Amino acid sequence: MKLSNIIVRATRGNITESLHRVHFALVNAEGALLAGAGDSRLLTFARSTAKLIQALPVLESGAAERFGLTEAEIALCCASHNGEAEHVSAAQGILSKLGLNPLHLQCGAHEPYHAPTAQAMRERGEKPTTLHNNCSGKHSGMLALCAQLGASPDTYMAISHPVQQAMLEAVSAMSNVAPRDMELGIDGCGVPVFGMPLDKLALAFARLGKPDGLPAARQAACRGIVAAVRKFPAYLAGEDRFDTQLIEVTGGRIVGKMGAEGMFALTIPDKGLGLSLKIEDGNQRALYPAVLEALIGLNLLTSEEAAKLADFRQPVIRNWQGTEVGRILPQFLEG
Amino acid sequence: MKLSNIIVRATRGNITESLHRVHFALVNAEGALLAGAGDSRLLTFARSTAKLIQALPVLESGAAERFGLTEAEIALCCASHNGEAEHVSAAQGILSKLGLNPLHLQCGAHEPYHAPTAQAMRERGEKPTTLHNNCSGKHSGMLALCAQLGASPDTYMAISHPVQQAMLEAVSAMSNVAPRDMELGIDGCGVPVFGMPLDKLALAFARLGKPDGLPAARQAACRGIVAAVRKFPAYLAGEDRFDTQLIEVTGGRIVGKMGAEGMFALTIPDKGLGLSLKIEDGNQRALYPAVLEALIGLNLLTSEEAAKLADFRQPVIRNWQGTEVGRILPQFLEG
Repeated sequence: MKLSNIIVRATRGNITESLHRVHFALVNAEGALLAGAGDSRLLTFARSTAKLIQALPVLESGAAERFGLTEAEIALCCASHNGEAEHVSAAQGILSKLGLNPLHLQCGAHEPYHAPTAQAMRERGEKPTTLHNNCSGKHSGMLALCAQLGASPDTYMAISHPVQQAMLEAVSAMSNVAPRDMELGIDGCGVPVFGMPLDKLALAFARLGKPDGLPAARQAACRGIVAAVRKFPAYLAGEDRFDTQLIEVTGGRIVGKMGAEGMFALTIPDKGLGLSLKIEDGNQRALYPAVLEALIGLNLLTSEEAAKLADFRQPVIRNWQGTEVGRILPQFLEG
Repeated sequence: MKLSNIIVRATRGNITESLHRVHFALVNAEGALLAGAGDSRLLTFARSTAKLIQALPVLESGAAERFGLTEAEIALCCASHNGEAEHVSAAQGILSKLGLNPLHLQCGAHEPYHAPTAQAMRERGEKPTTLHNNCSGKHSGMLALCAQLGASPDTYMAISHPVQQAMLEAVSAMSNVAPRDMELGIDGCGVPVFGMPLDKLALAFARLGKPDGLPAARQAACRGIVAAVRKFPAYLAGEDRFDTQLIEVTGGRIVGKMGAEGMFALTIPDKGLGLSLKIEDGNQRALYPAVLEALIGLNLLTSEEAAKLADFRQPVIRNWQGTEVGRILPQFLEG
């Protein structure tokens, strides 16, 4: 195993003002740990990185086919989206196919992540709806699965509900963590989140990209998820977002997803690799710099690709007046 | 020196999801390091904790007396205030005494920190002004000093300006860091910020509370600052704010101030002690839990006082629906 260390500095003037520590694990589809930093087996929550895995039952169950979900809608099921117009209408599209409406989504409402969209809504005096919630695609997918399973849509967020049991089974099987060993918590949007060692999350992503040997329906679902997200990366996140641009810039060679509290997980299907990464303190400002530094340090990104993503690697820190006062500077140290 | 360790956990479900590391230094007015955690000599920026020190020249120069600044207005000069009505009118009060207006403040405008005030302004369609900026008191104090020194108010934010040179001299002398050794950066509000080892910032606060042996004018200014902030703690921060409540709950026995990027500094004048604390990663959510844990661990807070500040010690983490999903849990470990 290749050992390394990543730190992310927040500088001001000539010194480091604050410091972010990073843990990551790079594994292959057999679960072998190929490289890592910090504690590669750190126990933490997968948060929204798990959405790509949680979408598997929506396809495997036949729900996606039965209700005619498009690939854009499937990509939205995996998303922490921006709440842009296309995201809202895709979530509405799924609900319409189910004969449901936005009130059936129990994720709650928050302003769109996409600042211009949020600003325009405020100026028009519009309140955000459940469709604008960054998780509305995931919840719509859960309702599709719910309909397919013939279960009640009223209690779909409970861990005992068939929908959440299907999520638990999929995340457990993909990560090779027994359901009884899976840590459970509640996510920002109310549904269960899954806690496991970092290297196990990386394994789930390696298998998502290279599902050889998994049951046929799961293999097909893995390929379907990756294909949908590659084809419609803007539905996974949106304008100006790293997750979307990482797929676009690499032509889909790398498919990755952020999660709250400084989480990231990605798959490189052609190489059968999975990588998961956690900012120890959970700060999002260090996340994309750390992910890029890891990919570059591991020779998994070309210099041309790195150049196109440079704005995410060393972001400028500005003050209220917009003056540059510092930078976020990630550093990859060979161990 | 008493060694210890403080960590602050952000939990979810049954596990730690994210972790914050803490550095602190406790010193006496002679600069002896009495206790600490992490790296007690960590080089970082004092940020807004320095405002109480930066207000010294406003008193020493005679500006406060000449322009008839009240004790509430002096407390506001030390503040990162909430932008509540009383803060805005106190900042306006200082400017009026100088024959200046809010356009002379170069701090920029941002929404009041105080959420109900910000919400009410949005509903009335009011835009924030420079008076609402949390630093408007500091900038007003700088303009008072500027007038007293007969310097131009147009360039008061530049490090070469007599006002900023007076700030640098005061912070240097109080912290026992030579001006040439002081790290300089630009703050959120555009003025210089001062970088020094944590124990030196703690020394400045120990001396602020126990200025014996300093030049007479500086001694008087130290006592004036502490008296003003003790008498008008609501002007140092505002409703629901830790800094204000720490002073209120301890009856002024402890006077402390937060700063951006996870900074805190406080003085206990009766004991001649100064304490400075830094959240390594800069996250504010860990700040007050860590400060309280340090004060309790060092036996500097009574259990009655700790009970009154309990809401700041282990804050609940809630999701979009308002459900409790975790807690911020600080831990003091004897070293």
